Amino acid sequence: MSSDLILPTWTDIEQAEQRIAGLAHRTPVLTSRHFNRRVGAELFFKCENFQRVGAFKFRGACNAIAALSAEEGGRGIITHSSGNHGQAVALAARLNGYGAVVVMPDNSARVKVEAVREYGGEVVFCAPGTQTRDAAVADLVDQHGYVFIPPYNHPGIIAGQGTAAKELLEDIPDLDVIMAPVGGGGLLSGTAIAARHLAPGIRVIGAEPRNADDAARSFRSGKLEPASPEQTVADGLRTTLGPMNFAIIREHVDDIVTVSEQAIVRDMRAVWERMKIVIEPSCAVPLAALAENDLDVGGQRVGIILTGGNVDLDALPW
Amino acid sequence: MSSDLILPTWTDIEQAEQRIAGLAHRTPVLTSRHFNRRVGAELFFKCENFQRVGAFKFRGACNAIAALSAEEGGRGIITHSSGNHGQAVALAARLNGYGAVVVMPDNSARVKVEAVREYGGEVVFCAPGTQTRDAAVADLVDQHGYVFIPPYNHPGIIAGQGTAAKELLEDIPDLDVIMAPVGGGGLLSGTAIAARHLAPGIRVIGAEPRNADDAARSFRSGKLEPASPEQTVADGLRTTLGPMNFAIIREHVDDIVTVSEQAIVRDMRAVWERMKIVIEPSCAVPLAALAENDLDVGGQRVGIILTGGNVDLDALPW
Repeated sequence: MSSDLILPTWTDIEQAEQRIAGLAHRTPVLTSRHFNRRVGAELFFKCENFQRVGAFKFRGACNAIAALSAEEGGRGIITHSSGNHGQAVALAARLNGYGAVVVMPDNSARVKVEAVREYGGEVVFCAPGTQTRDAAVADLVDQHGYVFIPPYNHPGIIAGQGTAAKELLEDIPDLDVIMAPVGGGGLLSGTAIAARHLAPGIRVIGAEPRNADDAARSFRSGKLEPASPEQTVADGLRTTLGPMNFAIIREHVDDIVTVSEQAIVRDMRAVWERMKIVIEPSCAVPLAALAENDLDVGGQRVGIILTGGNVDLDALPW
Repeated sequence: MSSDLILPTWTDIEQAEQRIAGLAHRTPVLTSRHFNRRVGAELFFKCENFQRVGAFKFRGACNAIAALSAEEGGRGIITHSSGNHGQAVALAARLNGYGAVVVMPDNSARVKVEAVREYGGEVVFCAPGTQTRDAAVADLVDQHGYVFIPPYNHPGIIAGQGTAAKELLEDIPDLDVIMAPVGGGGLLSGTAIAARHLAPGIRVIGAEPRNADDAARSFRSGKLEPASPEQTVADGLRTTLGPMNFAIIREHVDDIVTVSEQAIVRDMRAVWERMKIVIEPSCAVPLAALAENDLDVGGQRVGIILTGGNVDLDALPW
């Protein structure tokens, strides 16, 4: 199956970096004595919570949209999202001078709907569920000729997300391990391509909630496994691994480990308390993995990509 | 009255910087498109929430303690605090190889007591109230010969706090305005000395909760006014202006403005949501002052010192 896929490469990440320069932020890398002591390693946190729209998702959306021809972009962009990708597409489209439509389930939190609108996106509601959502997107593409930018199973998205790891490895070149959470796999696959190129001997480790462990199961079985029915607090990771992302992950990722909900919430809170930064639950998944799995990182230098900081301050998980 | 006081000067701030180098962090300066747009000015946030112990207080405590002779330090340090100063003294004493006792009201939040102990400080409880607290400190000094390091009315504390503004003005040299909140006045007085030296024409503005406006009233009347009876959510600013701090503020500060509780909570939350950093309520006071007062900063470059990020995540004010 994956032999049909045209997979992005290091060159695509270099081009992505040029496309998003001046639009995306080069985010800082933070360290923490507390977590170093707790883990017994040197940790380097790439802070995509400080990225535009508050999440790494802006990198991929911006790259995919900036790569369109003026004719394509002029037709307008469409995507579906109940989270950060919708905001990222809305802002990236506006910055490139294009319109954007975001299909959202009609039970979306109002704050997320308003965020898309604030960035200039038009929201179209559909009934919850992937089938109705995909049908709504297809109908609108048919009617208006919009260009569909999916959230992760797309070479331009993957290459854009890979720019975060590229920056991290340029700032901290001698990492032994690089970790990212995995949901649809856009971030992990882009991270893996960048890391394997810049630091061939590095260990690339994905981390996933045990309650949404389709990527870990697919990684073990060697074929795309169905989504887990259970829910996770890490709302950014409820998606199912994409075929393109899986092909890259199989080739370049060393391991995918899983963590408990309790550890995610505990370490999310610990980062707020100790590092004084606002992170979403997904960010805490790699840190929780270091606590709950024997990853043998003692004395090593470990990069962790913090995915974003968009949380509902009225509904914190503790 | 103030003629008796030996006030710290720019030279003391330079010396403080050398004493705390390698112990305190040089904290980053962050910017925000959102707040720039809202205020119509260019804002530069000096992030003392990323300072050790999570607050600027570490600078002053570290400087005052590092300036002691080995004989003095060897007798042990004592202070009273229900907040960040206690933690700062505990850690600064430990890093200088000395013991520390922190007198705390017996109704202190357990998390604050544990934080002092975690940094190696010994906690002695007293009944709430300044008289019992001062008596407890005096007794312990009599019994053990401890050296008392007060929270703000002390030249070494003021000089240490002034290093934050020194760093900010080194990183962003062409500020038109610099703002800090005012409680006891340690931060504002140190900020004023540093700013007046490095940028003589700069406007130095203090900001204070309207519910704890003794500094603003003292600034207007020209004499130390009694504390306000009302409470403020900005727990770091419930203290009363010190005589030494007042003498410096009268000389070097251009204005002290006051803000509502609603604006403090609103802007604290806005910083969490927009900048993805955890700040304590006191941090939001200067930002709220820009919204609630006509400070005529349009198009100007405004530095704001964010004081700290120690908040109880189980008792957020919204």
